[in-house]
Amino acid sequence: MRIAVMGAGAVGCYYGGMLSRAGHQVILIGRAQHVEAIHQHGLFMDTTRFRAHVPVRASTEVSDIRGASLILCCVKSNDTENAAAVMAPFVEPNAILLSLQNGVDNAGRLHAKLQHIVHPAVVYVAAEMMGPGHLKHHGRGELVVGPSAMSPEMLEGFVSAGVPVHVSDNVFGELWAKLILNCAYNAISAITKLPYGLLFENEDARDLMRLVVHECLAVAQRESITVPGDSWQEVERIAATMAGQFSSTAQDLMRGRRSEIDHLNGYIVRRGKSSAIDTPANQALYSLVKLLESAITADHPGPT
Amino acid sequence: MRIAVMGAGAVGCYYGGMLSRAGHQVILIGRAQHVEAIHQHGLFMDTTRFRAHVPVRASTEVSDIRGASLILCCVKSNDTENAAAVMAPFVEPNAILLSLQNGVDNAGRLHAKLQHIVHPAVVYVAAEMMGPGHLKHHGRGELVVGPSAMSPEMLEGFVSAGVPVHVSDNVFGELWAKLILNCAYNAISAITKLPYGLLFENEDARDLMRLVVHECLAVAQRESITVPGDSWQEVERIAATMAGQFSSTAQDLMRGRRSEIDHLNGYIVRRGKSSAIDTPANQALYSLVKLLESAITADHPGPT
Repeated sequence: MRIAVMGAGAVGCYYGGMLSRAGHQVILIGRAQHVEAIHQHGLFMDTTRFRAHVPVRASTEVSDIRGASLILCCVKSNDTENAAAVMAPFVEPNAILLSLQNGVDNAGRLHAKLQHIVHPAVVYVAAEMMGPGHLKHHGRGELVVGPSAMSPEMLEGFVSAGVPVHVSDNVFGELWAKLILNCAYNAISAITKLPYGLLFENEDARDLMRLVVHECLAVAQRESITVPGDSWQEVERIAATMAGQFSSTAQDLMRGRRSEIDHLNGYIVRRGKSSAIDTPANQALYSLVKLLESAITADHPGPT
Repeated sequence: MRIAVMGAGAVGCYYGGMLSRAGHQVILIGRAQHVEAIHQHGLFMDTTRFRAHVPVRASTEVSDIRGASLILCCVKSNDTENAAAVMAPFVEPNAILLSLQNGVDNAGRLHAKLQHIVHPAVVYVAAEMMGPGHLKHHGRGELVVGPSAMSPEMLEGFVSAGVPVHVSDNVFGELWAKLILNCAYNAISAITKLPYGLLFENEDARDLMRLVVHECLAVAQRESITVPGDSWQEVERIAATMAGQFSSTAQDLMRGRRSEIDHLNGYIVRRGKSSAIDTPANQALYSLVKLLESAITADHPGPT
């Protein structure tokens, strides 16, 4: 498979690196600092199962996605439209596009700009970039996709590369299930600078997370979305399987970057408003993260 | 007037200092560091109207409240029962007791322990301790009391000392009005480390504060409390009159101390639960401050 990964952050590097390590032709499209480091030493993958410098192609030029039969879109949800616009001229007509992003509407947003089918994939991986070309993997690494997202060969390619792929006939519900976990954990971890395990141990945090989950499920129900599984059990499971993890929102704020909160608790607030469901707990978390972001931006003015 | 001030924090030092400066016999009961500094140099008052070292008696011994005809209780709401217990043997039978504390139930809690009438006073002052015996006053300084709290002479004593006192026949409603302001500002200022003016400028913060105020008013209404004035206009007014102020909750967290949050948003949450009113925005703020407190305590273990 010729695979292009748009966005060389933690998610892009993890999946791109795993596929490259298994012998697939992968190119990572990312920022100069990561690309240069990867050119020099390969991608350094420090995972729960191995530590290795993995050779992989990397480029700052989006035009290098040309010729890819599979494109994994791994940019932040804030950058979805921009990514679609710059990718558009170089996407092969029969390329398969997967969105490996947080939030529930990225595949649709990519489709609207690209006029190309985009399949959503639900990502469960705990990983972060420790420096240029240096990926730290804390746990998990599976994907959930719809029945039409991957051919049997492609599915086999992922699985043999160490990337479990679950096929679900309710991938939209699965995206919501992940969104609910993100809504429960991301903002609270960012605001308190605490990892998932410590949050879940705390009764006050659990009270708040319960409210958040309850509001999310009310919005989902109003929108006729069937959220698979028991969301609260999944919240519990995250505390056990990713105890040491700080949310991506926490990582963004610590690094002075804009977070995806508009696509997490902010999304619930907007959908709640449009369907007349009150979401005050989500609103509280959303407002606080936005406030913290604005304080960061005021401290460190930069190129938007 | 012989006046004892229980608790030499910012509120106790401000009112005790103003009364002492006007020639009243005042004794401040506080911790050793403040008492020692005040013994050496007087109380340094850096106010919006004057800067001066104000001579005032100070003691670490609660027994020194003996003989006071007026006692101002200025301890944190978490310390109310303790303060009542240690004061009890030394309160003169006809002494007048005022509670100058945040929260709405301190006078009642003092009364329950002391078996002595305690009048609530609503405190509007922006002040903080900058160091031992060093008070910084940022603005305002008035009190609101009920009609029976002060004799005309006592009232005159306060006013001539530069402490405006408003008499209200709805002092319990006035306590709630202040509680609502505390619920709107204190936790958000503590969580974001931002002052009132910057919070109110921010649309996301205003959205959240509106939710908080709305929930508080719903609880007040269910409890048949008439909250005077327009709470939202008061929120606006605080932003204008105390723009640079960080909440006492913010000050507590910055200094690694337990805050009064149990008596602010936490009180609303408890009252809401007992009267079946949902208070998720208050719950969110309460949970987050408790989490931040627990993280502080974990970092700096100390004598509770």
